[in-house]
Amino acid sequence: MQGSNSGGKLETRQYLDKMFYPKSIAMIEASSKREWQVKGILNRNYSGDIYFVSKIEKEIFGIECYHDISELPDGIDHAIIAVNRKKLKEIIKTCIEKKFYTLHIFSAGAAEFDEEGVKLEREIQELIKNKIRAIGPNCMGVYCPEGRISYAPGFSEKSGRVAFVSQSGDITTQYVLNENHYGVNFSKVASIGNSIDLKIIDFIDYFNSDEKTEIISIYFEGFSRYEQEEGKKLRNVLMKNKKPLLLLRGGKTDQGKRAAASHTGAVATDDRIWRTLYKQTNALEVTSYEELLDSTIAFNYCKNLYPKVKSVVLIVWSGGKAVLTTDQLIQIGIDVPEIKEPTRSKMKEMISIGSVKNPLDLPWIGREGKYPEICKLSIEEEYIGGVILETGAWEKLDERFNTYFENLLKIFHYTKQQGKPFLLSLPHSHLYQQREEYKNKLVENGIPVFPTVSRAAKAFLNLFEFQRKFLF
Amino acid sequence: MQGSNSGGKLETRQYLDKMFYPKSIAMIEASSKREWQVKGILNRNYSGDIYFVSKIEKEIFGIECYHDISELPDGIDHAIIAVNRKKLKEIIKTCIEKKFYTLHIFSAGAAEFDEEGVKLEREIQELIKNKIRAIGPNCMGVYCPEGRISYAPGFSEKSGRVAFVSQSGDITTQYVLNENHYGVNFSKVASIGNSIDLKIIDFIDYFNSDEKTEIISIYFEGFSRYEQEEGKKLRNVLMKNKKPLLLLRGGKTDQGKRAAASHTGAVATDDRIWRTLYKQTNALEVTSYEELLDSTIAFNYCKNLYPKVKSVVLIVWSGGKAVLTTDQLIQIGIDVPEIKEPTRSKMKEMISIGSVKNPLDLPWIGREGKYPEICKLSIEEEYIGGVILETGAWEKLDERFNTYFENLLKIFHYTKQQGKPFLLSLPHSHLYQQREEYKNKLVENGIPVFPTVSRAAKAFLNLFEFQRKFLF
Repeated sequence: MQGSNSGGKLETRQYLDKMFYPKSIAMIEASSKREWQVKGILNRNYSGDIYFVSKIEKEIFGIECYHDISELPDGIDHAIIAVNRKKLKEIIKTCIEKKFYTLHIFSAGAAEFDEEGVKLEREIQELIKNKIRAIGPNCMGVYCPEGRISYAPGFSEKSGRVAFVSQSGDITTQYVLNENHYGVNFSKVASIGNSIDLKIIDFIDYFNSDEKTEIISIYFEGFSRYEQEEGKKLRNVLMKNKKPLLLLRGGKTDQGKRAAASHTGAVATDDRIWRTLYKQTNALEVTSYEELLDSTIAFNYCKNLYPKVKSVVLIVWSGGKAVLTTDQLIQIGIDVPEIKEPTRSKMKEMISIGSVKNPLDLPWIGREGKYPEICKLSIEEEYIGGVILETGAWEKLDERFNTYFENLLKIFHYTKQQGKPFLLSLPHSHLYQQREEYKNKLVENGIPVFPTVSRAAKAFLNLFEFQRKFLF
Repeated sequence: MQGSNSGGKLETRQYLDKMFYPKSIAMIEASSKREWQVKGILNRNYSGDIYFVSKIEKEIFGIECYHDISELPDGIDHAIIAVNRKKLKEIIKTCIEKKFYTLHIFSAGAAEFDEEGVKLEREIQELIKNKIRAIGPNCMGVYCPEGRISYAPGFSEKSGRVAFVSQSGDITTQYVLNENHYGVNFSKVASIGNSIDLKIIDFIDYFNSDEKTEIISIYFEGFSRYEQEEGKKLRNVLMKNKKPLLLLRGGKTDQGKRAAASHTGAVATDDRIWRTLYKQTNALEVTSYEELLDSTIAFNYCKNLYPKVKSVVLIVWSGGKAVLTTDQLIQIGIDVPEIKEPTRSKMKEMISIGSVKNPLDLPWIGREGKYPEICKLSIEEEYIGGVILETGAWEKLDERFNTYFENLLKIFHYTKQQGKPFLLSLPHSHLYQQREEYKNKLVENGIPVFPTVSRAAKAFLNLFEFQRKFLF
């Protein structure tokens, strides 16, 4: 074990290193009832020291428990505190005395719950100032595949390119699991709850300079009641950022702000601040949880494939869907320009049914050699920014499917060769099992998958927006 | 066999009866390659007469084929014609000579494809005038569980309350399968393609007076090029309608209109006509395929549970989702009003964590007896129009789940007793198999299920809108 924390002398970055790559972890109180919390660490070959403290249990999943925190060695990198709020101050005092480096205050019932909780938060804040760094209270903690720490056992063991910081524990959990499910992995994730010490801005700053992180995403619920300058500081870290940064903000409406106050005790922010922030920085505004999911997938798979024009070739299997999804793209702000001559005539010569004007409505020929050839002609056009293709799940992933799938891969590779993004919509349907298998095949081949054309479209817009902001 | 068609003397309604409840069906050309088309009828104990005509095959799935249409008896109720467009006129002439009643012209390559197709359609129109009634060309045909006719074998054999007419075959197929998957069944469905004879308006008129139909839904792509008065006629049939009627319209944008012209050869319509139509009639405007799916589900399950105010109790499991979904509801136009005193204090007394202001963010207590009791208090409030509840799929549908599920049913029944709709959001996640099982349990209990809160919210708005229009 390295030397213990001697009074807040490290830089924030160094504390965060200790949190994401801890050489020692303590859990106070550990409980076999919170199996997920314990197993999140135990199941991933963590090679550092683990200390469980429990007043009740002698052993948890084969690890002997310490009865009291006083029995632990000094200088532990990261302590997870899950005690009733009445014991919280006392436990934190001991952590400071024992020169621990970082705390994850899991306990809820703080400022989000009542006035007593607000008072408690202020006391803890005073207590830890310049002595120890903490996330929480009311949060799930950290996940870093490389550091072999995870607050949940279900998260992927693979390292990836996305970093996420969030004020909601459940959104963090759902987001990581959903992204993993679409083949997206993470460098570092933190659920930081009420943010009485370490804040969203600290993590953005850290992710900005983290070599393992290429994409940053954020769920933000409101400024901390303890930090007056947070707006200005947020602007500064966002100004420095050069990576795609997706920012989902909760509490935009009065009713949402009320819910946020009940959730993390966050302070409402003025919408004007945000409009300025999005304008002045590289931050990309995402407006729903679903858009956050989808845009993360898009940036993960479309590295350096940013559209130069806000237009697509839309490839579908159905005339009705061609009409409806074209309307949707236009209404979202993406053009579906008619393929110009002489290309259109070349394409028309190759079909006997369907339409090649754009959208490409090409029934029946998905398994023919000319299918990717027809698509290629349109994708190469300079006024086309990328491709959105919708396909349905197949009853059987048989030989017929395989021929079609090879064609699909050809279209994907053509698009990529042109430096353009390829986004695929695979709607949910009664064929849920087949959709899952099909989705897995797509993901394995590096194809970003979305559940509807309009969700793919919003992700496409964010790819475009990053390119636009980055160029200026 | 009853008497044959003697020159268009029946009313449109009677022709449609013959199409949905045919006592005899002919398929010209039948083909074992279009297995789905043949099996759609063969697999549902159709008790009428079936005639297959094929120049190539002698027998298809155990049914002997006729070599030529001339060998068939006169007066067949419904003939499905799937021949190359070159043979189309000749076949239709014979159908008329043989006094058949109704035709389903499956063949594509008509006005949607080229100028020759436009000419062909005009010739066919002249040919059939006052002699025989037809849907198509370029369409999938009809489905009526009660009449034991279905253009696809996968459609449910159960009769239901929804009637659908559509200008897109693929959308019809996807829609029926998706609705069946969420427990919604149909009275009658028709995919009518280019609509050279029978049009959307004929079906609306028929569904209006059809006793088996309680909800009408429509995919409309544009007015027929052969009917000058269609706008006025549409207004008239819509004015007469008293049932919930969902109208999805494709081709709203110029690019969408172009796609529609390539799809069904439909003529573009002026948006002003539509604004007037929605204003003057009970028709409900749905703006995407997904909204059509969801609103159909809502009307199917929420019969006579129409919200009187545009506000909900929002019940979630996660503080972050509480904030984000509240924002979304407000932005969509649904209020999430704070629960007023004295109810709020009564509710607050019952919890030690979470929030009961509305949204109800109630972690951990889902399996406790007080969970439905807390919810009930808020649902009874007069300023609450209904309930939207979000829940996640469970890892295991075990005893813990069962206790939670019983609580959920209690909340559902409380809401229903209050004459208010209960809409449930069950997002797609990595637990796709469990979501499916969970969804099935919900559907069996009569609960409408949606994939996101915002999709449930749009369906809620349509329930409200129907109530509002119906009252005036």
